[in-house]
Amino acid sequence: MKIAILGTGGVGKAFATRLTDLGHEVCVGTRDVSKTLEKDGEAGFKHFQSLNPKVKLATFSDAAAFGEIVINVSKGANTMDVIKAASSNLKGKVLVDISNPLDFSNGMPPSLIPEYSNTNSLGEEIQKYLPDTKVVKTLNTMWNGLMINPALIGNGDHVNYICGNDTEAKKKVISLLNEFGWKKESLLDLGDINAARATEAVLPIWLRVYGAKQSGAFNFKIVS
Amino acid sequence: MKIAILGTGGVGKAFATRLTDLGHEVCVGTRDVSKTLEKDGEAGFKHFQSLNPKVKLATFSDAAAFGEIVINVSKGANTMDVIKAASSNLKGKVLVDISNPLDFSNGMPPSLIPEYSNTNSLGEEIQKYLPDTKVVKTLNTMWNGLMINPALIGNGDHVNYICGNDTEAKKKVISLLNEFGWKKESLLDLGDINAARATEAVLPIWLRVYGAKQSGAFNFKIVS
Repeated sequence: MKIAILGTGGVGKAFATRLTDLGHEVCVGTRDVSKTLEKDGEAGFKHFQSLNPKVKLATFSDAAAFGEIVINVSKGANTMDVIKAASSNLKGKVLVDISNPLDFSNGMPPSLIPEYSNTNSLGEEIQKYLPDTKVVKTLNTMWNGLMINPALIGNGDHVNYICGNDTEAKKKVISLLNEFGWKKESLLDLGDINAARATEAVLPIWLRVYGAKQSGAFNFKIVS
Repeated sequence: MKIAILGTGGVGKAFATRLTDLGHEVCVGTRDVSKTLEKDGEAGFKHFQSLNPKVKLATFSDAAAFGEIVINVSKGANTMDVIKAASSNLKGKVLVDISNPLDFSNGMPPSLIPEYSNTNSLGEEIQKYLPDTKVVKTLNTMWNGLMINPALIGNGDHVNYICGNDTEAKKKVISLLNEFGWKKESLLDLGDINAARATEAVLPIWLRVYGAKQSGAFNFKIVS
């Protein structure tokens, strides 16, 4: 499948590599292609492309046009700007949103950006801004290594929430999650996109557990 | 040990019964003793006391005076009023706070009370109001049946967070948690009381999972 990834950071690169390995065609979107390619060194995108030559790089808008499914991995504070830049080519598409509205202005660990939390969320804000796009929120409650390879810990038996207004879109995303290694019994459908306010609110406890364990290689499992 | 419970609702009654069964002397605190005893029927406190004659009932202030450890189980929206009513007898004491700042004014499921969430919490607010009391936040991230009997599900292997500024106070509370059945490896110390803003923020996802499962008999386990 043709998949677009909005965001060139570590999470975007990890998704690009994993999706390419799974046989998908991947285009990563960025604000300014030439600027993204300017950065030298191992953290730069030029170096990444030299190791992953099949991965395309384009503007947010062109990447969105390329993807049958579009995955937003941008930092929460930038997400709405990224979505606006890509919006003209997101109509009718499935948009997987894994962003979190983290606010670093109050020190560490970060809190949540007030306007996108408690009675709102980034997932909902994106859906409101793009009424003709099928926003599916998932994977945002864990370390990115686990998002694309859940079997790294506990035989993959830990929870990944999914929510969104469109049932068919959720089915498509679940199919992709299965390719990553997510088992059916580890996925919990929480209903409409407004459940994103709950999954994004997992971050405060995630960050404290991360602080206590000094490792991101953990996730929550629901015991009953 | 002499233990006070602030709150006469279902959670307070469950704690009173369990603590009495464990051999503790229990006094439940309420705003108005005669009013609390007025209510007839099976949900009333008079009926409860007829089944649990060892459990005392007193004002919030008198109950606080009685308890070596005081447990706040009042509804989050009322907690600061309850704490103020008991405050003159809370100096130097260990106060276990299991309340959550739930806001029902935006419909169901509830959101969090803005002034006590994200960059603040009820746990922190109580500690600020009572600088000479040792506030320990714990047990607030699950159904009350599990708080006092974790072995009800999953062999008791699921997480209970604890936080507070005073190490000795946390040790005393851990000892009580052990009596309830909490194993050492299920308790995760998140540090100072400001971690209460993270554990109280578990409620949004807890409420959504509760909605999906239609049962409160579940808890989260940390898999790594």
